[in-house]
Amino acid sequence: KRTSFPEAVFCSGKSVAQIEAIVQSATERQMPLLLTRLTQEVFSRLSPEVQSVLARSDRSQTASSSVPPTTLQSGIGIVTAGTSDTPIAYEAAATLEFMGYAAPIVADVGVAGLWRLVSRLEEIRQFRVVIAAAGMEGALFSVLAGLIAAPVIAVPTSIGYGVSANGHAALSSALATCAPGVVVVNIDNGFGAAAAAIKMMRICQHS
Amino acid sequence: KRTSFPEAVFCSGKSVAQIEAIVQSATERQMPLLLTRLTQEVFSRLSPEVQSVLARSDRSQTASSSVPPTTLQSGIGIVTAGTSDTPIAYEAAATLEFMGYAAPIVADVGVAGLWRLVSRLEEIRQFRVVIAAAGMEGALFSVLAGLIAAPVIAVPTSIGYGVSANGHAALSSALATCAPGVVVVNIDNGFGAAAAAIKMMRICQHS
Amino acid sequence: KRTSFPEAVFCSGKSVAQIEAIVQSATERQMPLLLTRLTQEVFSRLSPEVQSVLARSDRSQTASSSVPPTTLQSGIGIVTAGTSDTPIAYEAAATLEFMGYAAPIVADVGVAGLWRLVSRLEEIRQFRVVIAAAGMEGALFSVLAGLIAAPVIAVPTSIGYGVSANGHAALSSALATCAPGVVVVNIDNGFGAAAAAIKMMRICQHS
Amino acid sequence: KRTSFPEAVFCSGKSVAQIEAIVQSATERQMPLLLTRLTQEVFSRLSPEVQSVLARSDRSQTASSSVPPTTLQSGIGIVTAGTSDTPIAYEAAATLEFMGYAAPIVADVGVAGLWRLVSRLEEIRQFRVVIAAAGMEGALFSVLAGLIAAPVIAVPTSIGYGVSANGHAALSSALATCAPGVVVVNIDNGFGAAAAAIKMMRICQHS
Amino acid sequence: KRTSFPEAVFCSGKSVAQIEAIVQSATERQMPLLLTRLTQEVFSRLSPEVQSVLARSDRSQTASSSVPPTTLQSGIGIVTAGTSDTPIAYEAAATLEFMGYAAPIVADVGVAGLWRLVSRLEEIRQFRVVIAAAGMEGALFSVLAGLIAAPVIAVPTSIGYGVSANGHAALSSALATCAPGVVVVNIDNGFGAAAAAIKMMRICQHS
Amino acid sequence: KRTSFPEAVFCSGKSVAQIEAIVQSATERQMPLLLTRLTQEVFSRLSPEVQSVLARSDRSQTASSSVPPTTLQSGIGIVTAGTSDTPIAYEAAATLEFMGYAAPIVADVGVAGLWRLVSRLEEIRQFRVVIAAAGMEGALFSVLAGLIAAPVIAVPTSIGYGVSANGHAALSSALATCAPGVVVVNIDNGFGAAAAAIKMMRICQHS
Amino acid sequence: KRTSFPEAVFCSGKSVAQIEAIVQSATERQMPLLLTRLTQEVFSRLSPEVQSVLARSDRSQTASSSVPPTTLQSGIGIVTAGTSDTPIAYEAAATLEFMGYAAPIVADVGVAGLWRLVSRLEEIRQFRVVIAAAGMEGALFSVLAGLIAAPVIAVPTSIGYGVSANGHAALSSALATCAPGVVVVNIDNGFGAAAAAIKMMRICQHS
Amino acid sequence: KRTSFPEAVFCSGKSVAQIEAIVQSATERQMPLLLTRLTQEVFSRLSPEVQSVLARSDRSQTASSSVPPTTLQSGIGIVTAGTSDTPIAYEAAATLEFMGYAAPIVADVGVAGLWRLVSRLEEIRQFRVVIAAAGMEGALFSVLAGLIAAPVIAVPTSIGYGVSANGHAALSSALATCAPGVVVVNIDNGFGAAAAAIKMMRICQHS
Ligand SMILES: Nc1ncnc2c1ncn2[C@@H]1O[C@H](COP(=O)(O)O)[C@@H](O)[C@H]1O
Ligand SMILES: Nc1ncnc2c1ncn2[C@@H]1O[C@H](COP(=O)(O)O)[C@@H](O)[C@H]1O
Ligand SMILES: Nc1ncnc2c1ncn2[C@@H]1O[C@H](COP(=O)(O)O)[C@@H](O)[C@H]1O
Ligand SMILES: Nc1ncnc2c1ncn2[C@@H]1O[C@H](COP(=O)(O)O)[C@@H](O)[C@H]1O
Ligand SMILES: [Mg+2]
Ligand SMILES: [Mg+2]
Ligand SMILES: [Mg+2]
Ligand SMILES: [Mg+2]
Ligand SMILES: [Mg+2]
Ligand SMILES: [Mg+2]
Ligand SMILES: [Mg+2]
Ligand SMILES: [Mg+2]
Repeated sequence: KRTSFPEAVFCSGKSVAQIEAIVQSATERQMPLLLTRLTQEVFSRLSPEVQSVLARSDRSQTASSSVPPTTLQSGIGIVTAGTSDTPIAYEAAATLEFMGYAAPIVADVGVAGLWRLVSRLEEIRQFRVVIAAAGMEGALFSVLAGLIAAPVIAVPTSIGYGVSANGHAALSSALATCAPGVVVVNIDNGFGAAAAAIKMMRICQHS
Repeated sequence: KRTSFPEAVFCSGKSVAQIEAIVQSATERQMPLLLTRLTQEVFSRLSPEVQSVLARSDRSQTASSSVPPTTLQSGIGIVTAGTSDTPIAYEAAATLEFMGYAAPIVADVGVAGLWRLVSRLEEIRQFRVVIAAAGMEGALFSVLAGLIAAPVIAVPTSIGYGVSANGHAALSSALATCAPGVVVVNIDNGFGAAAAAIKMMRICQHS
Repeated sequence: KRTSFPEAVFCSGKSVAQIEAIVQSATERQMPLLLTRLTQEVFSRLSPEVQSVLARSDRSQTASSSVPPTTLQSGIGIVTAGTSDTPIAYEAAATLEFMGYAAPIVADVGVAGLWRLVSRLEEIRQFRVVIAAAGMEGALFSVLAGLIAAPVIAVPTSIGYGVSANGHAALSSALATCAPGVVVVNIDNGFGAAAAAIKMMRICQHS
Repeated sequence: KRTSFPEAVFCSGKSVAQIEAIVQSATERQMPLLLTRLTQEVFSRLSPEVQSVLARSDRSQTASSSVPPTTLQSGIGIVTAGTSDTPIAYEAAATLEFMGYAAPIVADVGVAGLWRLVSRLEEIRQFRVVIAAAGMEGALFSVLAGLIAAPVIAVPTSIGYGVSANGHAALSSALATCAPGVVVVNIDNGFGAAAAAIKMMRICQHS
Repeated sequence: KRTSFPEAVFCSGKSVAQIEAIVQSATERQMPLLLTRLTQEVFSRLSPEVQSVLARSDRSQTASSSVPPTTLQSGIGIVTAGTSDTPIAYEAAATLEFMGYAAPIVADVGVAGLWRLVSRLEEIRQFRVVIAAAGMEGALFSVLAGLIAAPVIAVPTSIGYGVSANGHAALSSALATCAPGVVVVNIDNGFGAAAAAIKMMRICQHS
Repeated sequence: KRTSFPEAVFCSGKSVAQIEAIVQSATERQMPLLLTRLTQEVFSRLSPEVQSVLARSDRSQTASSSVPPTTLQSGIGIVTAGTSDTPIAYEAAATLEFMGYAAPIVADVGVAGLWRLVSRLEEIRQFRVVIAAAGMEGALFSVLAGLIAAPVIAVPTSIGYGVSANGHAALSSALATCAPGVVVVNIDNGFGAAAAAIKMMRICQHS
Repeated sequence: KRTSFPEAVFCSGKSVAQIEAIVQSATERQMPLLLTRLTQEVFSRLSPEVQSVLARSDRSQTASSSVPPTTLQSGIGIVTAGTSDTPIAYEAAATLEFMGYAAPIVADVGVAGLWRLVSRLEEIRQFRVVIAAAGMEGALFSVLAGLIAAPVIAVPTSIGYGVSANGHAALSSALATCAPGVVVVNIDNGFGAAAAAIKMMRICQHS
Repeated sequence: KRTSFPEAVFCSGKSVAQIEAIVQSATERQMPLLLTRLTQEVFSRLSPEVQSVLARSDRSQTASSSVPPTTLQSGIGIVTAGTSDTPIAYEAAATLEFMGYAAPIVADVGVAGLWRLVSRLEEIRQFRVVIAAAGMEGALFSVLAGLIAAPVIAVPTSIGYGVSANGHAALSSALATCAPGVVVVNIDNGFGAAAAAIKMMRICQHS
C-alpha cells in the first residue's frame, strides 16, 4: 500500500461480529493489525480464538495482532498537560510502538505551573517531533511551540467541563494559536497524531 | 446610588438624538458621564453644544463630560498579549482614569514569546489587580495567573480569524483555564473589566 | 509557591490509580490537598490507606487530606438562585473552608420572586466579595450586582433543560450583563469562584 | 380571512419592484397594508405613486397605506430595558396602532438599576398584556414576570456585543426563565409581539 | 403572592432530601404544591410520609399535594403533532388541572398528513388559547397559527435525532414562523406553556 | 465527461481575472459555460470581449456563454414560500433552462396561509420533480411533501432574521421533516437543486 | 393515501403501550406497518400478541407486520464508507425491501483508500439511484457524485468522535459538496433515504 | 531566537500607526519582517518612508522588508482544490519564499472531478511535505492523504456559503478525516501552514 501504514481499526461503534471478522481476515492475510478504542468490555466478548491472537493494553485501549518490533526508532516525544490526558498519550504511544518508534512521555507539564514545563525543557528539545496532548483551555500548545524548534502536533483532549466539555475549547486554542508551527488533529485523536508524527519522520527518507 | 458608579453610556447602536438627550440630561443634573464606543463619525454628528461639553479620546473611543481627577490611585494594571488588543486596553484605561485610578499598560507580552512576559514580570507583580486583554487563543490568561498572586480579570478580545473570529476561542480559554483566580468579562468589555477592578480595590475600604 | 494555593485535584476523569498516586505523593510531601468532583462511588474504590487520610464531604463532593483550620476569616459570602444550585455552592464553600475562610450561604433567592432576594439584602451587603451561583437564565447576577457594591463572582450552573441545558444560557447572561462589576468563572466552577474570591480578599494584604 | 390580520410585509430582502407590486396590488384591492423594516433608503427609491399612498415613520421603520384608526383600544403596554431597545419597541407600537390599539411605552427600566423598574411598577400593572423588549442578558424578562400578573411577551433584541451579539443571549434568557408566564417571539420581532398581544386581547371576545 | 401561582417545584436535579424538605414545608404551611419531572424512581425513594401526601401521575411525571378542584374551567386546549409529544402534553395538562382548568388534548395531528389536522379543526377552533407541542421540524406551529384565530403557545419538544436532537430545530421553527401570533416557551416546557395559557385566560378578569 | 454536466462556475469570491480566464478557456474549447452568483458589479468589470460572449440575467445573477436550447423538456417545477425566495428560484430556473429544461415557478405559497398552497395544488401535482425554496421556518417542505407524490428537493433560503438568519432554521426544518421523500441541498443552492432535479429526470433514461 | 407510502413508525421515544396500540390498530385495519428504531430491549417488552404479528430484524432494528413482497424491483443501490455505517445501511435496506425494492449494499468503500471505491465502480454504475452512507468527514459523497451519473442521496451517519461526533461534520460535507447532484437527508436517516429513493424511481411512472 | 522564525506581523486589525512603528523598529534592528493580510488600501496609507522599505505582493496580500533569498530550497508543495483557494495558497507561497523555500502550486485539483487530481499525482508525489488548501466540503484532504506518503497540512479556506460559510465545514472535514497523516491549521491560515511545513523540513537537520 502506498501510504505504508498497516491497517488500524477504530473499534468504537463496531459490533463484536464485525471486529472478529476484521481480525480473522487480517490473520489469514498475515497482515499486522492495530485495534484502537477497544474496551475491556468489548474485548471480553470476542471469541477465544480472536482474543488469543490479540495483545491488548488497558491503559491505551489498543490491541495488536503482531509481535512488536524489538528495536524502536527515536525522535518522537509526547508531552501532556495533565494527568487526565494520559489515556490519549497512551493511544499515541501504542501506535508509535506498533509502528517501530519509541514513545517517551513527558507528563503533567501544563502551563498553569510554568516551572514544571521549563524544568523539562531540555528533555523535550531532544525530540524531532513533539506530540502535545492537552484539554481544558489548551494553553500548553502555544507556550510549548514558542519554546522549541520542532513541529508540535496538538491533540486537544476532551478533558474538562462547562465550556471545555468535549474538547472544543482546547481545539480552538490549538488552531488559533499565534505560535507558528503548531498543527492539529481531531479531539482525542492520539492515533492520528502518531501517524502524522511518523509521516514527518519519514520526510528525511523521501527520495 | 449604592454601587457608587457614575453613569456610563454604551453608544454603539444609539442614535445621535438619543446620545444628545443623555448628555444634556446628565449635564443638567451635573452628573459626570462616561461615553464608550463613541466613534469619531458619530461624535462629529452631535450638536456643537453637546460636543463642547465632551472630551473625546480617539484611541479609547470614549468621551467624558467631567474634569478628570488630578491625582490617580495606583494598584490596577493592564497587560495585553498583542498590539491588536490595545483598543480594548485603552477602553479599560479610560474608564479607570475617569474613576480616579492610574492605568499603566504592559503591552504585547503574549506567550508565544514567553521571554517578553517573563522580562516584565516584576513590573506586573506590583499590581494588586491585573486586567489582561488577549485575543486569538488567549493563552496569556493561564500563564499569567500561574505566575502572579493578584486576581486576573480576563478580557477576551475579538482579535483573530477562523476559529478565533469574534473572540470566542479566547473567551473559552479564559473560562476553561486550569489556573485558579482568573475571572472573566464579556469579549471586548474593557469597560466592565475596569469596573470590576475598581470594585475589587474597594474591598479593602469595606466596613 | 508564588500563587500560595495548595494543590487541588479535579477527580472527574482520573482513574483510581491516578488519584491514589496523587494523594500518596502529597501525603509524603506533607502537602495539604483538596480533591474536587470526588464521587462516593470513586471514593469507595480507593485503597483503605488512601481513604483513611481523606475526609470526604458528600454534599460538596470534595475531600481533603489536611486538618481544617480552626478559625475562619470572614468577608466572603455565597448566594444561590435555587435549591438546585446548592451542590456548586457547597463546592465553593468547601474550598473556602479548606483555605481558612468562612462560607456563609444565602440560598434560594432567585429573582423570579424578587422579595426573597430583597429580604436578605442587608445580610448579603455584609460580604466584601460575593459568589453567586445560578442556572437556568441566570438573571440573579444582574439584579444582585445592581444592588450591592461588592464584586460579584458569577458561577453559572448547569441547571435547566432545553436552551439552558449545560449552563450556557446562564453563562451568557453572566457575561452579557449590563451591571458593572460582575466577573465570571466556568460553568459549575465552584472551586474557581472560591479561589478568585480569596485572591480578591488578599488584595488588601498586597504590599 | 380567518385570522383577521391585515397583510403585513417584511421589506428587508425584497426588491423595490417587489415592494411596489405588493403595495399596488393591495391598493387596488383596497386592503390596508403594513410594511415593516422599510428603511428610508429603500422608501426613497419607490415610485412617487407608491410613496404617495404610504405614510412612513422613521423611528419604527414602518409604513402603512391606510388611514390610522381614530380611537385606540387600551390594555397592551410596552416595556424596554434600555435606550437601545426603542427601535424594536416602536415597531411593536406601530403595529399595535395600525391595528387599533394604543401603545404606551415604559422605557429604560432595565434591572441593573432595579429602582427604575420598581418606580414604574404601578403604571405597568395597568396593562393586561405586556410586551417586554430587552437585549444584552435579558434579565428584565424574569424580574418583570415575577412582579406582575399579566402575560409577558418577551422580545429579545439584538443589542450587545461579544456573547450577546445578535440577541441570542437575551433569547436564551427569555426561554430559560424560571418565572412562569413568559412567552417569547423571535429576536427583534416587534411586529410578532404586537400580533400576539392582540390575539391575547381578543381571547375575551371569543365566543 | 402577586402572580397568583401556587408553588411549582422542578424535581429534576434536586436530591431526595431537598424534595422532602420542600414538600414538608408546604404541607406545614398548607400550601398546595405541584411537583414536575418527578420520576417514579425518585418518588419511590421519598419517605412514606412524604409519599402519602402526594398524588403522582406517571404519564405526566407530576405530583400534587392538594385535592384537585372538582370543577374545571374550559377555554384552553392542547394539540400535539405526534405520539411522541404526549409526555409534554400531559405535563401541561397536569398543570392546567392543578390550577383548575380542563385540559382536552387533540393528539397526533402533525402536518405531514394535513388531513389529520384539518379534520380536527372545528374542535380546535373552540379553544380560546391553544398549546401546541411538536418536535422534529415543528411545522405544526406555522400551519396551525395560519388556520385559527386564538393565540398559539408553541412548546418545541426534544423529539427527533440528528439535526432535531434536543428540540432545537423545532424551537427555531417556532420562533422563525411567518405566522403572526405564535409565542414560544422553552423546549419540553409543558409547565410553562400551561402557566402562560392561564395568564392569558386571566386577561379577561383584569380590572 | 461522465456526469454529463457542462461546466458551472461559482463567481462569488473569484477575481475578475480568474473569471475572465475561465470564460476565455471555455470559449476556446467551445464548451458551454454557466456562471452563477455573478453580480452586475463584477460583470461590469469584465473585459468587453468576455462580456460580449456572455448573456447575463439580473434576476438570477447568472450568465451563460451558449445559445439557450430552443425546446425545453418539461417535468420539473419550482415552488417558493415567499416573495423573498425568488432570487434563489431564479438561479434554479436559469440552471434548468441552460440544461434544456423548462422551469415553471409557482410562487408565494407559504403555509402560514394554507389556502394559497392548496389552490395551486393540481398545478404542482403535474411536476415529476419539485424544487421547493423556503426561508424563515421552512414549514413549506413538510406540508408540500405530505400532499404530493413527487420527490421534493428542499432549498433552504437565507431569508429571515434572529434565529432564521442565514437559513439554518429552514435547513434544520428540511432535514428534520417527518414527511418521507424530502431531500435537501445547501442553503441558497438553487444551482445544486436544479442539477439534482435533472439527475432525477435522467433516471428514466438509465439503461 | 396520496403519497402511497405505508405507515412507518419511529419507535425511539415511544412507550411500549403506544407501540402496542399502533400495531394493534394497523392490524385491525389490515394496514402493512414498518417499525424503525425498535430495539431488541423494547421489542421483548411488547405483549406476546403484538410480538407474534411482527417480524423483527436485529441488524436493521426494524420490524414489519406484513408478509414481505416475493419479487423485488431493482434500480436502487446502497454504498457505505465504513463498517460502522452498516446499521444505517440496513435500515435503508429494510425499508426498501418492505416497499418491494431490492437493496444491494456495496460496503466499506471510503475514500481514504480510493482503490476500494474505484474497484467497485462498475457495480455502482448499474444503480439508477444511489444511497450513500458515510460518517466522520463524509468525503465519500463528493467523490462518488463526481464519478457516477445517478443521483446520490447522502445519509450522514453519527460515526466518529471529536468534531465528527453526532454526524454534523459529515452532514456539512454532504451539503457543502461542490459535486452537483448530491441531495441530503437527516443524520442516520436510512429510512428517509430509502423513501426518497423510491419516490425518485417512481418519477418514471408519473403520468 | 530559538524558534528561528523571523518576525511576521498580522496586519488585519492593526492601525496604520501601529504597522509603521513595527516596520520602523524592525528596520532599525535590521530584522527581516514579513507582513501578512496587508491590503492595498492600508498599504497606500502608510508613510512613503515605510512604503519604500516594503515590497508588497497583491495576490498574496503580503509585504516584506528584506531582499528575497536568491536560491530556494525544494521539498514543499502546495495543492489547491479550486480557483477560489488561490489567495490562501499565495499567502503560504509568499511565506515559504520569504523563508528560502520554493513554493510550487498545483491548482484546482478538487475531487469532484477526480481525474484532475489523479493526472497531477506524480508531480505531487515529488513533494516531501504537502500544503493542501480547500474550502466548501474539504474532501480533497482525505483523498489526497490516501494517495501520497508525505504529511498533508490541511488549510481549510473560508470559501463557500450556507453551511460552508466561514470555512467551518472544511475545517471539520480536515479534522475528522479517516486518512492518517493529515494535520490541520486554522481556517485561511496560509502563513501557519508554511511555517509548519518549514519546521517539518528542518526535522532532518535536527541533531
Ligand atoms: N483511534 C483512532 N482515531 C482516529 N482514527 C482512527 C483510530 N483508529 C483507527 N483510525 C483510522 O480510521 C480508519 C478507518 O477505520 P475503520 O472504521 O476501522 O475502517 C482506519 O484506517 C484508521 O486510519
Ligand atoms: N463599553 C461597554 N461595555 C459594557 N458595558 C458598558 C459599556 N459602556 C457602558 N456599559 C454599561 O452598559 C449599561 C447600559 O448602558 P445603556 O444602554 O447606555 O443604558 C451602562 O450603565 C454601563 O454599565
Ligand atoms: N417542569 C417545569 N418546567 C419549567 N419550569 C418549572 C417546571 N416545574 C417548575 N418550574 C418553575 O421553576 C421554578 C423554580 O423551581 P425550583 O427550582 O423548584 O425552585 C418554580 O417556581 C416554577 O415556576
Ligand atoms: N427511522 C426513521 N427516521 C426518520 N423518519 C422516520 C423513521 N421511522 C419512521 N419515520 C417517519 O416518521 C413519521 C412520524 O412517525 P411517528 O412519530 O411514528 O408518527 C412516520 O410517518 C415516518 O414517515
Ligand atoms: Mg496536573
Ligand atoms: Mg505582537
Ligand atoms: Mg426555588
Ligand atoms: Mg440605559
Ligand atoms: Mg404520528
Ligand atoms: Mg408572501
Ligand atoms: Mg473501514
Ligand atoms: Mg474549479
